[in-house]
Amino acid sequence: MSITADTLWKDIQIIREKAPLVHNITNYVVMNTTANALLAIGASPVMAHALEEVEQMAAIASALVVNIGTLSGPWVEAMVAAMGVAADKGIPVVLDPVGAGATPYRTKTTEQLLAVTSPVIIRGNASEIIALVSSTARTKGVDSTAASDSAVAAGKALRQSSGSTVCVSGATDYIIGNDEVLTISNGHPLMPKVTGLGCTATALCGAFSAVNPSSPRAAAHAMATMGIAAELAADKANGPATFQAAFIDSLYLLRKKDVVRLLKSGTVQ
Amino acid sequence: MSITADTLWKDIQIIREKAPLVHNITNYVVMNTTANALLAIGASPVMAHALEEVEQMAAIASALVVNIGTLSGPWVEAMVAAMGVAADKGIPVVLDPVGAGATPYRTKTTEQLLAVTSPVIIRGNASEIIALVSSTARTKGVDSTAASDSAVAAGKALRQSSGSTVCVSGATDYIIGNDEVLTISNGHPLMPKVTGLGCTATALCGAFSAVNPSSPRAAAHAMATMGIAAELAADKANGPATFQAAFIDSLYLLRKKDVVRLLKSGTVQ
Amino acid sequence: MSITADTLWKDIQIIREKAPLVHNITNYVVMNTTANALLAIGASPVMAHALEEVEQMAAIASALVVNIGTLSGPWVEAMVAAMGVAADKGIPVVLDPVGAGATPYRTKTTEQLLAVTSPVIIRGNASEIIALVSSTARTKGVDSTAASDSAVAAGKALRQSSGSTVCVSGATDYIIGNDEVLTISNGHPLMPKVTGLGCTATALCGAFSAVNPSSPRAAAHAMATMGIAAELAADKANGPATFQAAFIDSLYLLRKKDVVRLLKSGTVQ
Repeated sequence: MSITADTLWKDIQIIREKAPLVHNITNYVVMNTTANALLAIGASPVMAHALEEVEQMAAIASALVVNIGTLSGPWVEAMVAAMGVAADKGIPVVLDPVGAGATPYRTKTTEQLLAVTSPVIIRGNASEIIALVSSTARTKGVDSTAASDSAVAAGKALRQSSGSTVCVSGATDYIIGNDEVLTISNGHPLMPKVTGLGCTATALCGAFSAVNPSSPRAAAHAMATMGIAAELAADKANGPATFQAAFIDSLYLLRKKDVVRLLKSGTVQ
Repeated sequence: MSITADTLWKDIQIIREKAPLVHNITNYVVMNTTANALLAIGASPVMAHALEEVEQMAAIASALVVNIGTLSGPWVEAMVAAMGVAADKGIPVVLDPVGAGATPYRTKTTEQLLAVTSPVIIRGNASEIIALVSSTARTKGVDSTAASDSAVAAGKALRQSSGSTVCVSGATDYIIGNDEVLTISNGHPLMPKVTGLGCTATALCGAFSAVNPSSPRAAAHAMATMGIAAELAADKANGPATFQAAFIDSLYLLRKKDVVRLLKSGTVQ
Repeated sequence: MSITADTLWKDIQIIREKAPLVHNITNYVVMNTTANALLAIGASPVMAHALEEVEQMAAIASALVVNIGTLSGPWVEAMVAAMGVAADKGIPVVLDPVGAGATPYRTKTTEQLLAVTSPVIIRGNASEIIALVSSTARTKGVDSTAASDSAVAAGKALRQSSGSTVCVSGATDYIIGNDEVLTISNGHPLMPKVTGLGCTATALCGAFSAVNPSSPRAAAHAMATMGIAAELAADKANGPATFQAAFIDSLYLLRKKDVVRLLKSGTVQ
């Protein structure tokens, strides 16, 4: 399996044409930028977290994105309910275990969510993915402190236990699906200086999952789109905030020739 | 009834001079951009949602803006309490039924809020306004899928049942007050590519309602201000995110000559 | 006591090198911009508010920032718990009493939090600081309506009663520590036109407190960094939104020569 500029571009065209509804139960920090990124790529975002409505909202969505960045009891209940409906209806679920390992509550909640249904994609940074397979690993807040390559082994273990495609994001993104590990080497050093770009990546995994039944391809397409948009944005940015704005603009303005020119994808064992 | 550059500019001058306090009980996605838009036009925004304080906060405000974009039980309770106080004190209430029709909970909550008091203005997109008068209408998430003109009839019915001025926003905005329907044809195609600009429009309806007792005029002034600022912003934008920033800047920099040059208002039956 | 370009720059270098974890329990409006400002200066932000995890998160943090901008019952409970742990572990706590005086709930909550432990720094605008020492003072929402200089006396009284360094921000910032009052005269008139820059200042007080045990110096360094970044940003801004973006960029791009050239600090009685 591999991705190409053609497979990626085809998905972007479908997203732009169909504007799939992506239901997000996500954290307060990134709601605005997540919604804007989904709109910019062509999807239709909705945020809803009340137990009174999450099941109905998930049921009409084309993908469900669950992100535990600022979790609390009522939100976790809603995540469980929405994931249950998505599982019943065959709607793809994408999970972002933000800060897993930083507190027992985050790790425990991630385990609770994984017990509801197997997400098509779990996306996290190296520290988070390692924390999900090693009870002794510790995360410093929500920023990764582990080398991406050391997380690939953890990603493979998580793939085994969860059945999900696991995406470890970093300077190189590793997408661990069935046999091979796909890699995406696009991106820019300013990305970790902007809060919530990982959450945006997860939301884009949702948008691509809504149009592509191959979860490794959907994840790789999402990460490549992130990285290419970031490279285009860096040319127009002075620092992290103008970079964030240029990044959203780039998602909206993305053309096939950008993808053809910039995509850096591969496979490793 | 009609609006002119003079009536609009007079209100903007009063807002800038008096900095009316606008109390927002709104959704997580747009709190930051709503507050910045209110500051940019000259108002003083405050966000408060705890049952312990919403009544006192609403009581000192010049307008109350209620937006159900990310509603939940405790927030609805607070909305009810704040609207009750506003009604008692004669403080104008503006309501944004975000996503009405997408889930029964949103439609039911809107009905519950309308039973507390009649807002001076209800602002929504075509799908939302239709959903409030047709129990069989369905909304796809929070983005409109209905033609604006088909929503005018629904707006008139909602006007009848609620007593509120109804504003249906879209490429053309329709403001349904007493007899005539005011139209505003300002705006830019990038607007629906930015999350929460509808919510910003509702917040500006609050700011204009704080200084103008005619709710159709307040709504028309708010929508014209939105559209004119968007047209000015488009000249400085590359895509949706730089457009959002330029839009806020334009609200702050707006001059009378911009309004005179750009205002496109009219009436229809 | 005084601060210089050298003392300020030394702290910035330590923040950039150590990336101290700053745990924020803050309001919905500013979470995104606060996180981005902390990342831009070099710190590592985390937002967590669930009672299930705040104690563990506070325990691994280098500073705890508590901000009551959109408070509610469960959040206040979490603030109390997190401040208790921080007090036990000697982790510096910074408090932002947003809107104190606007409602009894905000004033009462501030008093409740001050009873848990003495923050190293309390930062507020003039209206808020006055409200904390005068039960008859009233705040209009979250924007200051009092002259900064009239707040210095209130700040001294609050310093006495709380034991905290008190920072009254405004066109001139007053930092009230042990004996002298430090002043910072950097800044730009666009700052109050951007929502939440006061909250950003408080968060930076957290970052500087994480690396400097002198709380008056930490506060003065934070306020000077804010003001200098704002002056640099103003040159690149058209209005409040491009100013906000340029401000974050400036935090990231800040060089020692900017600090040497621009710092305006002093002392008053």
